[in-house]
Amino acid sequence: MDAVAVEEPLELRLHTPDGPLPLGVLMRTPGHDHELLLGWLVAEGLLPDDLTLHPDAENRNVWHLHTPDFARLAAGARLAVSSSACGVCGSGSVERLIARASPPSWAGGPLDVAWLSGLPEALAAAQPGFAATGGLHGAALFTPDGTRLAAFEDVGRHNAVDKLVGWAQAQGRLPLPDAVLVVSSRAGFEIVQKAVTAGIAVIVAVGAATSLAVDTAAAFGVTLCGFARGDRLTVYAGAGRLGGGSHEDSPADA
Amino acid sequence: MDAVAVEEPLELRLHTPDGPLPLGVLMRTPGHDHELLLGWLVAEGLLPDDLTLHPDAENRNVWHLHTPDFARLAAGARLAVSSSACGVCGSGSVERLIARASPPSWAGGPLDVAWLSGLPEALAAAQPGFAATGGLHGAALFTPDGTRLAAFEDVGRHNAVDKLVGWAQAQGRLPLPDAVLVVSSRAGFEIVQKAVTAGIAVIVAVGAATSLAVDTAAAFGVTLCGFARGDRLTVYAGAGRLGGGSHEDSPADA
Repeated sequence: MDAVAVEEPLELRLHTPDGPLPLGVLMRTPGHDHELLLGWLVAEGLLPDDLTLHPDAENRNVWHLHTPDFARLAAGARLAVSSSACGVCGSGSVERLIARASPPSWAGGPLDVAWLSGLPEALAAAQPGFAATGGLHGAALFTPDGTRLAAFEDVGRHNAVDKLVGWAQAQGRLPLPDAVLVVSSRAGFEIVQKAVTAGIAVIVAVGAATSLAVDTAAAFGVTLCGFARGDRLTVYAGAGRLGGGSHEDSPADA
Repeated sequence: MDAVAVEEPLELRLHTPDGPLPLGVLMRTPGHDHELLLGWLVAEGLLPDDLTLHPDAENRNVWHLHTPDFARLAAGARLAVSSSACGVCGSGSVERLIARASPPSWAGGPLDVAWLSGLPEALAAAQPGFAATGGLHGAALFTPDGTRLAAFEDVGRHNAVDKLVGWAQAQGRLPLPDAVLVVSSRAGFEIVQKAVTAGIAVIVAVGAATSLAVDTAAAFGVTLCGFARGDRLTVYAGAGRLGGGSHEDSPADA
Protein backbone atom coordinates (compact mmCIF):
# COMPACT_ATOMS: atom_id res chain seq x y z
CA MET A 1 0.00 0.00 0.00
CA ASP A 2 1.77 3.15 -1.13
CA ALA A 3 -1.08 5.44 -2.17
CA VAL A 4 -3.43 7.68 -0.19
CA ALA A 5 -7.21 7.44 -0.62
CA VAL A 6 -8.48 10.70 -2.09
CA GLU A 7 -11.13 12.61 -0.08
CA GLU A 8 -12.72 15.83 -1.39
CA PRO A 9 -16.03 17.61 -0.67
CA LEU A 10 -18.76 17.47 -3.31
CA GLU A 11 -21.55 20.04 -3.30
CA LEU A 12 -24.91 19.57 -5.02
CA ARG A 13 -26.62 22.83 -6.01
CA LEU A 14 -30.35 22.86 -6.72
CA HIS A 15 -31.31 25.62 -9.15
CA THR A 16 -34.50 27.48 -8.26
CA PRO A 17 -36.05 30.70 -9.60
CA ASP A 18 -34.68 32.38 -6.43
CA GLY A 19 -31.15 31.23 -7.16
CA PRO A 20 -29.06 28.17 -6.33
CA LEU A 21 -29.69 26.31 -3.06
CA PRO A 22 -27.05 23.93 -1.65
CA LEU A 23 -28.84 20.58 -1.18
CA GLY A 24 -25.93 18.85 0.46
CA VAL A 25 -22.18 18.43 0.77
CA LEU A 26 -20.62 14.96 0.75
CA MET A 27 -17.00 14.17 1.61
CA ARG A 28 -16.22 11.62 -1.07
CA THR A 29 -13.62 10.07 -3.34
CA PRO A 30 -13.94 11.78 -6.76
CA GLY A 31 -15.18 9.53 -9.55
CA HIS A 32 -18.69 8.24 -10.34
CA ASP A 33 -20.08 11.49 -8.95
CA HIS A 34 -23.17 11.19 -11.14
CA GLU A 35 -23.97 7.79 -9.63
CA LEU A 36 -23.20 9.09 -6.13
CA LEU A 37 -25.61 12.00 -6.44
CA LEU A 38 -28.40 9.92 -8.00
CA GLY A 39 -28.07 7.33 -5.23
CA TRP A 40 -28.01 9.99 -2.54
CA LEU A 41 -31.21 11.55 -3.96
CA VAL A 42 -32.88 8.10 -3.92
CA ALA A 43 -31.88 7.49 -0.29
CA GLU A 44 -33.08 10.93 0.82
CA GLY A 45 -36.40 10.41 -0.94
CA LEU A 46 -35.67 13.47 -3.11
CA LEU A 47 -35.19 11.99 -6.60
CA PRO A 48 -37.44 13.86 -9.11
CA ASP A 49 -38.93 12.11 -12.15
CA ASP A 50 -37.37 14.67 -14.44
CA LEU A 51 -33.92 16.12 -13.81
CA THR A 52 -30.63 17.12 -15.36
CA LEU A 53 -27.49 16.73 -13.33
CA HIS A 54 -24.16 18.06 -14.56
CA PRO A 55 -20.76 19.01 -13.17
CA ASP A 56 -19.65 22.63 -12.93
CA ALA A 57 -17.50 23.75 -15.83
CA GLU A 58 -14.71 24.97 -13.57
CA ASN A 59 -14.93 23.16 -10.21
CA ARG A 60 -15.10 19.37 -10.28
CA ASN A 61 -16.40 19.43 -6.71
CA VAL A 62 -19.62 21.22 -7.61
CA TRP A 63 -22.58 19.65 -9.46
CA HIS A 64 -25.74 21.37 -10.65
CA LEU A 65 -29.28 19.97 -10.45
CA HIS A 66 -32.11 21.39 -12.58
CA THR A 67 -35.64 20.02 -12.21
CA PRO A 68 -39.22 21.29 -12.67
CA ASP A 69 -39.80 19.68 -9.24
CA PHE A 70 -37.44 22.15 -7.50
CA ALA A 71 -40.05 23.30 -4.97
CA ARG A 72 -40.47 19.81 -3.50
CA LEU A 73 -36.70 19.31 -3.32
CA ALA A 74 -36.12 22.67 -1.67
CA ALA A 75 -38.83 21.87 0.88
CA GLY A 76 -37.31 18.43 1.46
CA ALA A 77 -33.90 19.97 2.09
CA ARG A 78 -35.38 22.39 4.61
CA LEU A 79 -37.29 19.53 6.24
CA ALA A 80 -34.11 17.49 6.59
CA VAL A 81 -32.61 20.36 8.59
CA SER A 82 -35.64 20.91 10.79
CA SER A 83 -37.38 17.51 11.02
CA SER A 84 -35.08 16.47 13.83
CA ALA A 85 -37.16 18.73 16.04
CA CYS A 86 -39.95 16.16 16.46
CA GLY A 87 -39.83 12.79 18.10
CA VAL A 88 -36.14 12.00 18.18
CA CYS A 89 -35.75 8.43 19.33
CA GLY A 90 -34.77 5.16 17.74
CA SER A 91 -38.33 4.20 16.86
CA GLY A 92 -38.95 7.74 15.54
CA SER A 93 -36.19 7.24 12.94
CA VAL A 94 -37.75 3.95 11.85
CA GLU A 95 -41.22 5.51 11.76
CA ARG A 96 -40.10 8.37 9.52
CA LEU A 97 -38.66 5.80 7.11
CA ILE A 98 -41.90 3.78 7.22
CA ALA A 99 -43.75 6.96 6.22
CA ARG A 100 -41.86 7.15 2.92
CA ALA A 101 -40.73 3.63 2.00
CA SER A 102 -42.23 0.14 1.63
CA PRO A 103 -40.74 -3.23 2.59
CA PRO A 104 -38.57 -4.45 -0.30
CA SER A 105 -39.67 -7.72 -1.87
CA TRP A 106 -37.33 -10.66 -2.48
CA ALA A 107 -37.61 -12.82 -5.60
CA GLY A 108 -34.28 -14.62 -5.42
CA GLY A 109 -35.37 -17.84 -3.69
CA PRO A 110 -33.87 -19.42 -0.56
CA LEU A 111 -30.46 -17.99 0.29
CA ASP A 112 -27.48 -20.28 0.74
CA VAL A 113 -25.53 -19.44 3.88
CA ALA A 114 -22.19 -20.60 2.48
CA TRP A 115 -22.70 -18.41 -0.60
CA LEU A 116 -23.64 -15.36 1.50
CA SER A 117 -20.64 -15.89 3.79
CA GLY A 118 -18.32 -15.88 0.79
CA LEU A 119 -19.60 -12.62 -0.67
CA PRO A 120 -17.14 -10.37 1.22
CA GLU A 121 -14.31 -12.25 -0.49
CA ALA A 122 -16.01 -11.67 -3.86
CA LEU A 123 -16.39 -7.98 -2.94
CA ALA A 124 -12.69 -7.73 -2.01
CA ALA A 125 -11.80 -8.91 -5.52
CA ALA A 126 -13.64 -5.82 -6.80
CA GLN A 127 -11.79 -3.34 -4.54
CA PRO A 128 -8.59 -2.32 -6.34
CA GLY A 129 -8.62 1.01 -4.49
CA PHE A 130 -8.63 -0.67 -1.11
CA ALA A 131 -5.81 -2.95 -2.20
CA ALA A 132 -3.80 0.13 -3.20
CA THR A 133 -4.62 2.44 -0.28
CA GLY A 134 -6.24 0.46 2.55
CA GLY A 135 -8.45 3.52 2.96
CA LEU A 136 -11.50 2.88 0.79
CA HIS A 137 -14.78 1.14 1.58
CA GLY A 138 -16.51 -1.01 -0.98
CA ALA A 139 -20.09 -1.98 -1.83
CA ALA A 140 -21.36 -4.41 -4.45
CA LEU A 141 -24.55 -6.06 -5.71
CA PHE A 142 -24.66 -9.81 -6.39
CA THR A 143 -27.46 -12.01 -7.71
CA PRO A 144 -27.96 -15.59 -6.43
CA ASP A 145 -26.63 -17.05 -9.71
CA GLY A 146 -23.25 -15.61 -8.72
CA THR A 147 -23.29 -12.55 -11.00
CA ARG A 148 -21.72 -9.36 -9.68
CA LEU A 149 -23.93 -6.58 -11.06
CA ALA A 150 -21.68 -3.70 -10.00
CA ALA A 151 -19.17 -2.60 -7.37
CA PHE A 152 -17.97 0.82 -6.20
CA GLU A 153 -15.43 2.22 -3.76
CA ASP A 154 -15.28 5.43 -1.72
CA VAL A 155 -13.64 6.84 1.42
CA GLY A 156 -17.19 6.98 2.83
CA ARG A 157 -19.02 3.70 3.37
CA HIS A 158 -22.37 5.40 2.80
CA ASN A 159 -21.10 6.93 -0.44
CA ALA A 160 -20.08 3.51 -1.79
CA VAL A 161 -23.70 2.35 -1.36
CA ASP A 162 -25.03 5.58 -2.90
CA LYS A 163 -22.84 5.05 -5.99
CA LEU A 164 -24.17 1.52 -6.32
CA VAL A 165 -27.81 2.58 -6.00
CA GLY A 166 -27.24 5.52 -8.36
CA TRP A 167 -25.73 3.13 -10.92
CA ALA A 168 -28.85 0.92 -10.69
CA GLN A 169 -31.12 3.98 -10.94
CA ALA A 170 -29.29 5.21 -14.06
CA GLN A 171 -29.76 1.73 -15.60
CA GLY A 172 -33.49 1.76 -14.76
CA ARG A 173 -32.95 -1.29 -12.53
CA LEU A 174 -34.57 -0.13 -9.28
CA PRO A 175 -36.02 -1.81 -7.23
CA LEU A 176 -33.67 -4.78 -6.95
CA PRO A 177 -35.72 -7.76 -5.73
CA ASP A 178 -33.07 -10.31 -6.71
CA ALA A 179 -29.86 -8.57 -5.59
CA VAL A 180 -27.87 -8.84 -2.36
CA LEU A 181 -26.08 -5.71 -1.11
CA VAL A 182 -22.60 -6.47 0.26
CA VAL A 183 -20.69 -3.81 2.23
CA SER A 184 -17.09 -3.92 3.44
CA SER A 185 -18.03 -2.05 6.60
CA ARG A 186 -20.37 -2.38 9.54
CA ALA A 187 -24.13 -1.93 9.02
CA GLY A 188 -25.72 1.01 10.82
CA PHE A 189 -29.14 2.60 10.41
CA GLU A 190 -28.19 4.55 7.29
CA ILE A 191 -26.97 1.47 5.39
CA VAL A 192 -30.31 -0.26 6.00
CA GLN A 193 -32.20 2.95 5.09
CA LYS A 194 -30.35 3.15 1.77
CA ALA A 195 -31.12 -0.51 1.01
CA VAL A 196 -34.81 -0.09 1.85
CA THR A 197 -35.24 3.02 -0.28
CA ALA A 198 -33.54 1.23 -3.20
CA GLY A 199 -35.78 -1.83 -2.84
CA ILE A 200 -32.98 -4.17 -1.72
CA ALA A 201 -34.15 -6.96 0.61
CA VAL A 202 -30.89 -8.66 1.63
CA ILE A 203 -27.76 -7.08 3.17
CA VAL A 204 -24.45 -8.75 4.03
CA ALA A 205 -21.93 -6.71 6.05
CA VAL A 206 -18.34 -7.66 6.75
CA GLY A 207 -18.63 -6.11 10.22
CA ALA A 208 -21.24 -5.80 12.95
CA ALA A 209 -24.76 -4.38 12.75
CA THR A 210 -26.05 -1.76 15.21
CA SER A 211 -29.22 -1.99 17.29
CA LEU A 212 -31.06 0.56 15.15
CA ALA A 213 -29.98 -1.21 11.95
CA VAL A 214 -31.44 -4.45 13.32
CA ASP A 215 -34.71 -2.74 14.36
CA THR A 216 -35.05 -1.13 10.93
CA ALA A 217 -34.30 -4.35 9.06
CA ALA A 218 -36.88 -6.18 11.18
CA ALA A 219 -39.50 -3.48 10.56
CA PHE A 220 -39.01 -3.75 6.77
CA GLY A 221 -38.58 -7.52 6.52
CA VAL A 222 -34.98 -7.07 5.35
CA THR A 223 -32.53 -9.94 5.81
CA LEU A 224 -29.52 -8.44 7.61
CA CYS A 225 -26.32 -10.47 8.03
CA GLY A 226 -23.03 -9.40 9.58
CA PHE A 227 -19.59 -10.74 10.47
CA ALA A 228 -19.59 -12.68 7.19
CA ARG A 229 -16.26 -14.53 7.19
CA GLY A 230 -15.20 -17.91 5.85
CA ASP A 231 -18.31 -20.08 5.89
CA ARG A 232 -20.06 -18.39 8.83
CA LEU A 233 -22.15 -15.30 9.41
CA THR A 234 -24.48 -13.78 12.00
CA VAL A 235 -28.11 -13.26 10.99
CA TYR A 236 -29.57 -10.21 12.76
CA ALA A 237 -32.97 -10.10 11.03
CA GLY A 238 -34.98 -11.87 8.32
CA ALA A 239 -33.50 -15.34 8.84
CA GLY A 240 -36.60 -16.87 7.20
CA ARG A 241 -35.10 -16.46 3.72
CA LEU A 242 -32.03 -18.57 4.51
CA GLY A 243 -31.59 -22.17 3.53
CA GLY A 244 -29.18 -24.55 5.28
CA GLY A 245 -25.73 -23.80 6.63
CA SER A 246 -24.10 -22.56 9.79
CA HIS A 247 -25.26 -19.25 11.17
CA GLU A 248 -25.94 -17.59 14.49
CA ASP A 249 -29.34 -15.99 14.97
CA SER A 250 -29.85 -12.42 16.17
CA PRO A 251 -27.66 -11.79 19.19
CA ALA A 252 -29.19 -10.03 22.17
CA ASP A 253 -29.12 -6.26 22.53
CA ALA A 254 -26.11 -4.86 24.36
CA MET B 1 -19.27 -11.48 20.47
CA ASP B 2 -22.92 -11.92 21.31
CA ALA B 3 -24.17 -8.36 21.84
CA VAL B 4 -25.27 -5.64 19.40
CA ALA B 5 -23.76 -2.14 19.51
CA VAL B 6 -26.49 0.34 20.43
CA GLU B 7 -27.17 3.18 17.96
CA GLU B 8 -29.72 5.94 18.70
CA PRO B 9 -30.16 9.53 17.47
CA LEU B 10 -29.31 12.38 19.84
CA GLU B 11 -30.73 15.84 19.24
CA LEU B 12 -29.28 19.03 20.70
CA ARG B 13 -31.82 21.87 21.09
CA LEU B 14 -30.62 25.44 21.46
CA HIS B 15 -33.07 27.58 23.42
CA THR B 16 -33.63 31.07 22.01
CA PRO B 17 -36.20 33.78 22.76
CA ASP B 18 -37.95 32.65 19.53
CA GLY B 19 -38.17 29.06 20.74
CA PRO B 20 -35.98 25.98 20.51
CA LEU B 21 -33.73 25.49 17.47
CA PRO B 22 -32.29 22.06 16.62
CA LEU B 23 -28.51 22.54 16.42
CA GLY B 24 -27.76 19.02 15.29
CA VAL B 25 -28.64 15.35 15.39
CA LEU B 26 -25.96 12.73 15.98
CA MET B 27 -26.42 8.97 15.56
CA ARG B 28 -24.55 7.74 18.63
CA THR B 29 -24.21 5.08 21.29
CA PRO B 30 -26.00 6.38 24.42
CA GLY B 31 -23.73 7.17 27.35
CA HIS B 32 -21.36 10.10 27.98
CA ASP B 33 -23.79 12.32 26.07
CA HIS B 34 -22.63 15.38 27.98
CA GLU B 35 -19.04 14.79 26.86
CA LEU B 36 -20.22 14.04 23.30
CA LEU B 37 -22.11 17.33 23.00
CA LEU B 38 -19.33 19.42 24.57
CA GLY B 39 -16.79 17.86 22.20
CA TRP B 40 -19.04 18.36 19.20
CA LEU B 41 -19.50 22.05 20.10
CA VAL B 42 -15.70 22.45 20.36
CA ALA B 43 -15.15 20.83 16.96
CA GLU B 44 -17.84 22.95 15.31
CA GLY B 45 -16.37 26.13 16.80
CA LEU B 46 -19.66 26.75 18.61
CA LEU B 47 -18.76 26.26 22.30
CA PRO B 48 -19.94 29.31 24.30
CA ASP B 49 -18.07 30.54 27.40
CA ASP B 50 -21.21 30.26 29.48
CA LEU B 51 -23.70 27.44 29.00
CA THR B 52 -25.91 24.91 30.70
CA LEU B 53 -26.47 21.58 29.03
CA HIS B 54 -28.97 19.08 30.39
CA PRO B 55 -30.93 16.05 29.21
CA ASP B 56 -34.65 16.20 28.61
CA ALA B 57 -36.70 14.94 31.54
CA GLU B 58 -38.62 12.47 29.40
CA ASN B 59 -36.57 11.62 26.28
CA ARG B 60 -32.97 10.50 26.82
CA ASN B 61 -32.27 11.27 23.16
CA VAL B 62 -32.91 15.01 23.53
CA TRP B 63 -30.56 17.47 25.28
CA HIS B 64 -31.17 21.17 25.95
CA LEU B 65 -28.63 23.96 25.61
CA HIS B 66 -29.13 27.35 27.27
CA THR B 67 -26.60 30.15 26.75
CA PRO B 68 -26.58 33.97 26.71
CA ASP B 69 -24.58 33.52 23.48
CA PHE B 70 -27.54 31.93 21.67
CA ALA B 71 -27.49 34.41 18.78
CA ARG B 72 -23.94 33.42 17.73
CA LEU B 73 -24.78 29.71 17.97
CA ALA B 74 -27.97 30.11 15.96
CA ALA B 75 -26.05 32.04 13.30
CA GLY B 76 -23.33 29.37 13.30
CA ALA B 77 -25.91 26.63 12.79
CA ARG B 78 -27.43 28.54 9.85
CA LEU B 79 -23.94 29.12 8.44
CA ALA B 80 -23.12 25.41 8.64
CA VAL B 81 -26.14 24.76 6.43
CA SER B 82 -25.38 27.46 3.90
CA SER B 83 -21.58 27.91 3.96
CA SER B 84 -21.15 25.05 1.54
CA ALA B 85 -22.26 27.47 -1.15
CA CYS B 86 -18.85 29.13 -1.43
CA GLY B 87 -15.57 27.66 -2.53
CA VAL B 88 -16.16 23.95 -2.24
CA CYS B 89 -12.89 22.20 -2.86
CA GLY B 90 -10.31 20.39 -0.78
CA SER B 91 -8.26 23.50 -0.15
CA GLY B 92 -11.47 25.43 0.64
CA SER B 93 -12.20 23.03 3.51
CA VAL B 94 -8.70 23.52 4.89
CA GLU B 95 -8.94 27.30 4.46
CA ARG B 96 -12.21 27.49 6.39
CA LEU B 97 -10.54 25.61 9.24
CA ILE B 98 -7.52 27.93 9.11
CA ALA B 99 -9.91 30.87 9.50
CA ARG B 100 -11.07 29.61 12.90
CA ALA B 101 -8.27 27.48 14.40
CA SER B 102 -4.53 27.76 15.06
CA PRO B 103 -1.82 25.11 14.69
CA PRO B 104 -1.69 23.03 17.91
CA SER B 105 1.60 23.18 19.80
CA TRP B 106 3.47 20.08 21.00
CA ALA B 107 5.30 20.01 24.34
CA GLY B 108 5.82 16.27 24.67
CA GLY B 109 9.36 15.98 23.30
CA PRO B 110 10.59 13.63 20.57
CA LEU B 111 8.14 10.82 19.84
CA ASP B 112 9.27 7.23 19.98
CA VAL B 113 8.09 5.27 16.93
CA ALA B 114 7.87 1.95 18.78
CA TRP B 115 5.72 3.56 21.48
CA LEU B 116 3.41 5.20 18.92
CA SER B 117 3.08 1.92 17.01
CA GLY B 118 1.97 0.15 20.17
CA LEU B 119 -0.76 2.65 21.07
CA PRO B 120 -3.55 0.86 19.12
CA GLU B 121 -2.94 -2.20 21.32
CA ALA B 122 -3.19 0.02 24.41
CA LEU B 123 -6.41 1.51 22.99
CA ALA B 124 -7.85 -1.97 22.37
CA ALA B 125 -7.37 -2.75 26.06
CA ALA B 126 -9.73 0.19 26.76
CA GLN B 127 -12.46 -0.99 24.35
CA PRO B 128 -14.72 -3.40 26.30
CA GLY B 129 -17.63 -2.50 24.03
CA PHE B 130 -15.74 -3.49 20.90
CA ALA B 131 -14.69 -6.74 22.56
CA ALA B 132 -18.37 -7.46 23.29
CA THR B 133 -19.96 -6.28 20.04
CA GLY B 134 -17.29 -5.79 17.38
CA GLY B 135 -19.35 -2.78 16.38
CA LEU B 136 -17.88 0.14 18.33
CA HIS B 137 -15.05 2.50 17.47
CA GLY B 138 -12.67 3.73 20.14
CA ALA B 139 -10.59 6.85 20.77
CA ALA B 140 -8.12 7.55 23.56
CA LEU B 141 -5.59 10.13 24.73
CA PHE B 142 -2.12 9.05 25.88
CA THR B 143 0.79 11.10 27.22
CA PRO B 144 4.41 10.21 26.37
CA ASP B 145 5.02 8.90 29.91
CA GLY B 146 2.57 6.11 29.06
CA THR B 147 -0.47 7.46 30.91
CA ARG B 148 -3.86 6.91 29.35
CA LEU B 149 -5.80 10.09 30.13
CA ALA B 150 -9.18 8.83 28.92
CA ALA B 151 -10.85 6.50 26.42
CA PHE B 152 -14.34 6.38 24.91
CA GLU B 153 -16.31 4.17 22.55
CA ASP B 154 -19.16 4.85 20.12
CA VAL B 155 -20.76 3.39 16.98
CA GLY B 156 -19.53 6.55 15.25
CA ARG B 157 -15.78 7.08 14.98
CA HIS B 158 -16.24 10.85 15.03
CA ASN B 159 -18.41 10.61 18.14
CA ALA B 160 -15.71 8.68 20.02
CA VAL B 161 -13.32 11.60 19.41
CA ASP B 162 -16.00 14.15 20.39
CA LYS B 163 -16.56 12.32 23.71
CA LEU B 164 -12.83 12.42 24.38
CA VAL B 165 -12.52 16.13 23.59
CA GLY B 166 -15.67 16.89 25.59
CA TRP B 167 -14.20 15.02 28.57
CA ALA B 168 -11.05 17.15 28.33
CA GLN B 169 -13.12 20.32 27.98
CA ALA B 170 -15.18 19.44 31.06
CA GLN B 171 -11.92 18.92 33.00
CA GLY B 172 -10.57 22.28 31.82
CA ARG B 173 -7.71 20.46 30.08
CA LEU B 174 -7.93 21.94 26.57
CA PRO B 175 -5.68 22.48 24.64
CA LEU B 176 -3.71 19.22 24.98
CA PRO B 177 -0.09 19.97 23.96
CA ASP B 178 1.27 16.77 25.50
CA ALA B 179 -1.37 14.22 24.45
CA VAL B 180 -1.53 11.85 21.49
CA LEU B 181 -4.96 11.07 20.00
CA VAL B 182 -5.34 7.40 19.07
CA VAL B 183 -8.31 6.25 16.96
CA SER B 184 -9.35 2.71 16.10
CA SER B 185 -10.47 3.79 12.64
CA ARG B 186 -9.09 5.48 9.57
CA ALA B 187 -8.24 9.21 9.69
CA GLY B 188 -10.25 11.45 7.38
CA PHE B 189 -10.58 15.22 7.27
CA GLU B 190 -13.01 15.41 10.18
CA ILE B 191 -10.76 13.48 12.57
CA VAL B 192 -7.91 15.93 11.90
CA GLN B 193 -10.33 18.89 12.20
CA LYS B 194 -11.46 17.67 15.61
CA ALA B 195 -7.85 17.25 16.78
CA VAL B 196 -6.87 20.72 15.56
CA THR B 197 -9.82 22.46 17.22
CA ALA B 198 -9.01 20.65 20.49
CA GLY B 199 -5.35 21.66 20.31
CA ILE B 200 -4.04 18.11 19.77
CA ALA B 201 -0.81 17.95 17.74
CA VAL B 202 -0.28 14.20 17.26
CA ILE B 203 -2.70 11.61 15.82
CA VAL B 204 -2.23 7.85 15.49
CA ALA B 205 -4.83 5.93 13.44
CA VAL B 206 -5.13 2.18 13.20
CA GLY B 207 -6.16 2.51 9.54
CA ALA B 208 -5.28 4.69 6.58
CA ALA B 209 -5.39 8.48 6.26
CA THR B 210 -7.16 10.25 3.38
CA SER B 211 -5.64 12.85 1.07
CA LEU B 212 -7.56 15.71 2.68
CA ALA B 213 -6.60 14.52 6.17
CA VAL B 214 -2.94 14.62 5.11
CA ASP B 215 -3.29 18.10 3.57
CA THR B 216 -4.99 19.42 6.71
CA ALA B 217 -2.43 17.87 9.05
CA ALA B 218 0.39 19.38 6.96
CA ALA B 219 -1.28 22.82 6.97
CA PHE B 220 -1.54 22.77 10.79
CA GLY B 221 1.79 21.11 11.58
CA VAL B 222 0.02 18.06 13.00
CA THR B 223 1.88 14.75 13.15
CA LEU B 224 -0.41 12.22 11.45
CA CYS B 225 0.39 8.51 11.59
CA GLY B 226 -1.62 5.60 10.21
CA PHE B 227 -1.48 1.83 9.81
CA ALA B 228 0.01 1.58 13.30
CA ARG B 229 0.58 -2.13 13.86
CA GLY B 230 3.23 -4.09 15.70
CA ASP B 231 6.34 -1.92 15.68
CA ARG B 232 5.67 -0.11 12.41
CA LEU B 233 3.55 2.80 11.23
CA THR B 234 3.20 5.16 8.27
CA VAL B 235 3.89 8.85 8.87
CA TYR B 236 1.73 10.99 6.60
CA ALA B 237 2.67 14.43 7.98
CA GLY B 238 4.74 16.05 10.70
CA ALA B 239 7.54 13.44 10.79
CA GLY B 240 9.88 16.03 12.31
CA ARG B 241 8.66 15.21 15.84
CA LEU B 242 9.61 11.54 15.62
CA GLY B 243 12.75 10.03 17.10
CA GLY B 244 14.30 6.76 15.92
CA GLY B 245 12.50 3.61 14.79
CA SER B 246 11.04 2.08 11.65
CA HIS B 247 8.47 4.10 9.77
CA GLU B 248 7.48 4.88 6.20
CA ASP B 249 7.26 8.53 5.22
CA SER B 250 4.24 10.08 3.50
CA PRO B 251 3.14 7.86 0.64
CA ALA B 252 2.29 9.49 -2.67
CA ASP B 253 -1.21 10.65 -3.50
CA ALA B 254 -3.42 8.08 -5.23
